[in-house]
Amino acid sequence: MPTRSSPAAVSPSTAYAALERRFARLRAIEDSIAFLHWDQSAVMPAGGASSRADQLATLAGLHHDLLTAPDTAEMIALADPLAEAESAEDGAWRLANLAEITRIHAHAMALPGDLVEALSRAGNACERVWREARPLGDFALVEGPLGQLLGLVRDSAAAKAEALGVAPYDALLDQYEPGGSSARIDGIFDDLEAFLPDFLGRVIERQGAAAEAPAGPFPIPTQQAVGRATMESLGFDFDHGRLDVSLHPFCGGSPQDLRLTTRYDEADFTSALMGVIHETGHALYEQGLPRDRLSQPVGRARGMSVHESQSLLFEMQAGRSRAFISHCAPAWKAAFGGEGEAWRADSLYRHFTRVEPGFIRVDADEVTYPAHVIVRYRLEKALIEGRMALGDLPTAWNDAMERLLGVRPPNDRLGCLQDIHWYDGAWGYFPTYTLGAMTAAQVFDAASRAVPDIGPAIGRGDFTPLLGWLRTHIHAKGCLLSTDALLREATGRPLDASVFKAHLTRRYLEDR
Amino acid sequence: MPTRSSPAAVSPSTAYAALERRFARLRAIEDSIAFLHWDQSAVMPAGGASSRADQLATLAGLHHDLLTAPDTAEMIALADPLAEAESAEDGAWRLANLAEITRIHAHAMALPGDLVEALSRAGNACERVWREARPLGDFALVEGPLGQLLGLVRDSAAAKAEALGVAPYDALLDQYEPGGSSARIDGIFDDLEAFLPDFLGRVIERQGAAAEAPAGPFPIPTQQAVGRATMESLGFDFDHGRLDVSLHPFCGGSPQDLRLTTRYDEADFTSALMGVIHETGHALYEQGLPRDRLSQPVGRARGMSVHESQSLLFEMQAGRSRAFISHCAPAWKAAFGGEGEAWRADSLYRHFTRVEPGFIRVDADEVTYPAHVIVRYRLEKALIEGRMALGDLPTAWNDAMERLLGVRPPNDRLGCLQDIHWYDGAWGYFPTYTLGAMTAAQVFDAASRAVPDIGPAIGRGDFTPLLGWLRTHIHAKGCLLSTDALLREATGRPLDASVFKAHLTRRYLEDR
Repeated sequence: MPTRSSPAAVSPSTAYAALERRFARLRAIEDSIAFLHWDQSAVMPAGGASSRADQLATLAGLHHDLLTAPDTAEMIALADPLAEAESAEDGAWRLANLAEITRIHAHAMALPGDLVEALSRAGNACERVWREARPLGDFALVEGPLGQLLGLVRDSAAAKAEALGVAPYDALLDQYEPGGSSARIDGIFDDLEAFLPDFLGRVIERQGAAAEAPAGPFPIPTQQAVGRATMESLGFDFDHGRLDVSLHPFCGGSPQDLRLTTRYDEADFTSALMGVIHETGHALYEQGLPRDRLSQPVGRARGMSVHESQSLLFEMQAGRSRAFISHCAPAWKAAFGGEGEAWRADSLYRHFTRVEPGFIRVDADEVTYPAHVIVRYRLEKALIEGRMALGDLPTAWNDAMERLLGVRPPNDRLGCLQDIHWYDGAWGYFPTYTLGAMTAAQVFDAASRAVPDIGPAIGRGDFTPLLGWLRTHIHAKGCLLSTDALLREATGRPLDASVFKAHLTRRYLEDR
Repeated sequence: MPTRSSPAAVSPSTAYAALERRFARLRAIEDSIAFLHWDQSAVMPAGGASSRADQLATLAGLHHDLLTAPDTAEMIALADPLAEAESAEDGAWRLANLAEITRIHAHAMALPGDLVEALSRAGNACERVWREARPLGDFALVEGPLGQLLGLVRDSAAAKAEALGVAPYDALLDQYEPGGSSARIDGIFDDLEAFLPDFLGRVIERQGAAAEAPAGPFPIPTQQAVGRATMESLGFDFDHGRLDVSLHPFCGGSPQDLRLTTRYDEADFTSALMGVIHETGHALYEQGLPRDRLSQPVGRARGMSVHESQSLLFEMQAGRSRAFISHCAPAWKAAFGGEGEAWRADSLYRHFTRVEPGFIRVDADEVTYPAHVIVRYRLEKALIEGRMALGDLPTAWNDAMERLLGVRPPNDRLGCLQDIHWYDGAWGYFPTYTLGAMTAAQVFDAASRAVPDIGPAIGRGDFTPLLGWLRTHIHAKGCLLSTDALLREATGRPLDASVFKAHLTRRYLEDR
């Protein structure tokens, strides 16, 4: 297949330029895939599923073909990113871009194209069966397709492990969290695991009885209007994005056109609203990436823990703060025609920060959430490393939940069937949620120290100072720095759990 | 770029199988493009435009690369479609498939890949300027981008003309109407042009004063509900499609997932409703294509005149028939809470079949519609053949409208800016509308003779007999036959204007 950007006889500077053109085309394919995924989740009728699977697998295969074409490797070997750099800063961006290109290329070269298409098809097929199995709580129904998918994921992990010189699990993790390692995660998670049970007991003891919950029904059009207004106040640009509905909320699309989804519960407006704030945090990161580098790998977000930090910063650090909830309470009360105790700012704050061990990760409060992630991390690692049989997953899941949170799921719908990730092929992803929560705490703390008005402004419903600091110190950096270097520059230190634990202690033990 | 389905040492039968795999991948790319187009028209925020243009151009380029890869030509040269045919019928399908593959390949090979991407980008850019220029009626605003696009279209016409051995305009026409020729169209259009002016005068004289129009406002949710119910009664399968809103109504997506759009006017429910019936006609054709050949070129619709015949058959032949309108009148009256004379079946029928020369093609009745098409056909042919300068288009348009219909557009919004086609790059497309209208009349007449209950059933709101006949004689044939052969098998004769003229005469001079 002719690759029209392929140079006949090239100099190092034209090789770099050709590489940029190649990666701009790859980016356009990735964005196309992202929109087809959004469509599938938000608007596609059920009958379109099998042809959509063909489209996604074909585009994944073409992407892989183009990325692993022999001339891509030749261009990488030849390219001199500094030859035509316009400034030292431009040179730094170009060097970082070539580093990202090299990393992405190494990941792709580890896999044969047939495996890439097979993974896309198996993930799509397994996800479809999972959609039937979940409401039935029937893990046996999906075990076969999940086994096939897991087999391909393990093949992929083994191939990438060999190519990258790391352990298989770390090779999967590196897809979402470049430079991440399970050794480091183990250390952080062990620290949390030692902290959580005792802390949780103290929080539950201290918080006492639940605040009265605002009474519904909450009409969906009103929830939509409140959600949109909130997105706008956070700084979301609706000229470059939408808000829709899907079963599993997400933020997809491209930086120029972000597709957010949520799901509405007529009995509880708080779940969709906090979901919207969460996804808006993701979207603001994408909308703040360096505009003139968007077509290049260096213009992408710096891995999933940083991405999750932005959503959790808006949802957990700012959105559930006493200052923000106090500011919003009158407007929410007016929008929903609420009356009584439950709509007082303090009641709403207690409602939004209620801690309670439960079965469902996405409904979990920020104190128990890490336990959900630790359970999944330990299980997926055991499955990838072949230390556990897939058939043992439901029981192992329930045992772990009981051990960490003291609750045992009565069925698999509330247990190992609840999340889409494994059934969709995203193995090695879960730890980034809790790394993200810790990063969010550390970043918000640093921002608030650097710009003292950030907290008071949030209390006035004004996110401009916060967004401005994030735009400069996180969003506009793209992949210029490693995750560690980004955090060191922004917060003065690499990631650890201390600020997160201090935040939890302040919010749940001291400040209430 | 490696083409993983490329055979190392292949037999004629494996070459054919490899060709089928290659074209299944091409089909998946085409479908991806179709969904991105739907998204762009129906849901995309304005800020997504430039990145969407990148996605569409990149996919168009990848499609072209894959289609024109050297091993595609090798497989075509080697392939024996009959070697593994399972039956004589299967063999006929395989032979027809190879013929379509060869035709599509010849079109693609005529164009360099850079021109394909440039055409995609120029069409996208010109369409965006047209969206600004149309409401302003400012042709000068879009003349530059249109000139660039027309230049690329002419380059493409010239290259295809040389490769296919036909005139440049016919090479463009062949993209939409395989085997079509302007010589034949000239004959048919001359015939119509001789018939229309006198006929139009007699119709207008006979029809007298306009029937009272049903009075609105017609709430959009009610229009949507009526439209959906109508689609279901026509036989549309909502498990494999949707109805949405766009500025320019269309039927897009893939046969497994058809995306219909309409636009609503709160002052007039008839326009959106007839639009919905029209697009449903397109959709039923796609939903009736041969399921087991959908991934192959032979499984596609047999050109745009046959496609348009299906929409016009449902809209003009069945939808505007006295029998159907009489059946629907009470339901429409109830849905919109209508009262008075205007809601009587006869008034509605006269309203739906009112003939009146006007400026806008998509609002035209079926008597004046051919004049709109003839104007555009003559102008686009002159522009492609270089017999006219682009700057002369507005005046030439207005002159032609005055000559054929006796009305002179007062501005370009009502003149040469009204349609998207040229600004989007679809040159050589317009004649298929009127070929389609004539085909619709001829097909509906043949179906009604073959199955006498088709007419009475439509009067009961039952489209099953009609759809059944179309499924067998048109839809399920895909590209098995040429357009001429398809029409000969279905109606006993090749296309001419006689049945269309007889239909117009009966409906507008005899039956009222």
